[in-house]
Amino acid sequence: MMFQKATGGGAFKFADLFKEKLGIVFDKEDEMHSLVCGVNFLLKTVPREAFTYLDGQKEFVQIDHNDLYPYLLVNIGSGVSMIKVDGDGKYERISGTSLGGGTFLGLGKLLTKCKSFDELLELSHQGNNRVIDMLVGDIYGGTDYSKIGLSSTAIASSFGKAISDGKELEDYQPEDVARSLLRMISNNIGQIAYLNALRFGLKRIFFGGFFIRGLEYTMDTISVAVHFWSRGEAKAMFLRHEGFLGALGAFTSYKDQSHSTDLKPHHHTVERAVLKCSDDDSFRHIPVTANVNDGEAIECSINLV
Amino acid sequence: MMFQKATGGGAFKFADLFKEKLGIVFDKEDEMHSLVCGVNFLLKTVPREAFTYLDGQKEFVQIDHNDLYPYLLVNIGSGVSMIKVDGDGKYERISGTSLGGGTFLGLGKLLTKCKSFDELLELSHQGNNRVIDMLVGDIYGGTDYSKIGLSSTAIASSFGKAISDGKELEDYQPEDVARSLLRMISNNIGQIAYLNALRFGLKRIFFGGFFIRGLEYTMDTISVAVHFWSRGEAKAMFLRHEGFLGALGAFTSYKDQSHSTDLKPHHHTVERAVLKCSDDDSFRHIPVTANVNDGEAIECSINLV
Repeated sequence: MMFQKATGGGAFKFADLFKEKLGIVFDKEDEMHSLVCGVNFLLKTVPREAFTYLDGQKEFVQIDHNDLYPYLLVNIGSGVSMIKVDGDGKYERISGTSLGGGTFLGLGKLLTKCKSFDELLELSHQGNNRVIDMLVGDIYGGTDYSKIGLSSTAIASSFGKAISDGKELEDYQPEDVARSLLRMISNNIGQIAYLNALRFGLKRIFFGGFFIRGLEYTMDTISVAVHFWSRGEAKAMFLRHEGFLGALGAFTSYKDQSHSTDLKPHHHTVERAVLKCSDDDSFRHIPVTANVNDGEAIECSINLV
Repeated sequence: MMFQKATGGGAFKFADLFKEKLGIVFDKEDEMHSLVCGVNFLLKTVPREAFTYLDGQKEFVQIDHNDLYPYLLVNIGSGVSMIKVDGDGKYERISGTSLGGGTFLGLGKLLTKCKSFDELLELSHQGNNRVIDMLVGDIYGGTDYSKIGLSSTAIASSFGKAISDGKELEDYQPEDVARSLLRMISNNIGQIAYLNALRFGLKRIFFGGFFIRGLEYTMDTISVAVHFWSRGEAKAMFLRHEGFLGALGAFTSYKDQSHSTDLKPHHHTVERAVLKCSDDDSFRHIPVTANVNDGEAIECSINLV
């Protein structure tokens, strides 16, 4: 019988299957706990981890470790969780939205016949959302509705032009549909995140999760949304090593469990996580030592390539 | 040359066309101003105007006129405007969302081939959103994610099941698609409205606009959303005579302009607005007198049938 750290919904859903078929017992780590541990670890350990992204410009943000908390973590997976993080192991899921990556891909598949997330994203880069979105200018004869501060190019109604165009799905270009979808979801997440940050007085918002994965257009759209809704007062932030935050957090939990007595020897393996960072040529090596039992250690090195 | 009160985007967009083809000059009233005037008029004039709607139960709310302001008005047309109303003519558009009635109908038409709003709504009544929405229980093997207070039946990801079902659009029932769409849009509006009410300390949220029109399932979905996001602390409210708020407000503006010197005699017509109220057999007659110039009056009666 092997024991394996696992997190996320699958750790529950597939637990019996893994035990029965493969003889692997999941040592379940709570998903949100792992995620928060992973982000805290990165923000405290890795220099130049957080950055803003606007108009194609990546700008690293130096964060004082003593002034890190509280912050808002927005994790965009199939759905979206918004977590207020107050410290190591101190967090609360304060909000979320069901309009997340699953909505983007789910609706995207139905509307464009795309097969994968990457294909849909690629499509959206080539599209023009003005074909299907109803803009303020479309309603007001090309002019702004300046009295309430809405420019003619602001989206008044996502997919609103499809009401009266007399077109069917086949008459639209899939790339335009994908673009409108991406704008709709990203803008909405940015808005709800900002409103929650405001509600709890959180000055920093970090976005992560499968939906982001360092994709430039996605980050740009979310950044524009946060900028728009906060009237320039807040900035979206992203993580350089975003991608496997939960796994990283689950791994660091070995350290948390250093005084646990029922740990199995199987855990005492040497693990190595290679985190890619394309914009930085320097090779960084961060040793992470987690004392599992007295005198024993997990050796883990994280190479930032 | 005739003069005619007009409001909304069309008052700008079609102004030249109406003047040229029909000889009608639009006396433009600002859309938002008219809307707010209409709602204020109803809330102050008509008894038992506002009501809550939950689990099929309509409950009228008695509002003290001296304790009416400030309130949040959520107008759901193609897009959604959220307006903080502080008094007669005192208001500010504080927020909104591009996910509105236009998104519901626009996406709905593309996904179901429905031709009209009513047809799409009718479809949605017969559908089951669990077919396409990914629920918390779908992720966690049928169990709640109780640690963070999410029940197994909560929607984790709207349209999220379409990611992995291996189905194409034609494989889904249009009614299930329509239902998921309605839940997604209504839930999202309810959430953003609540967050804005919280932000500005507004204790009442009134929902109106073409998307609502007294439709029970729509009201129920919005009410559930506000209840869910506020953890039972806030209630959505609706208006019995919702439907032509802007037109009503534009009409009452005759009164506002009582001291204007350039009013044309064409305005001094007798108008009659008949507002239907299906649940109330009593026939109400509210005389509204608007003094246009000294000694002259517009006679207007509003019949509540």
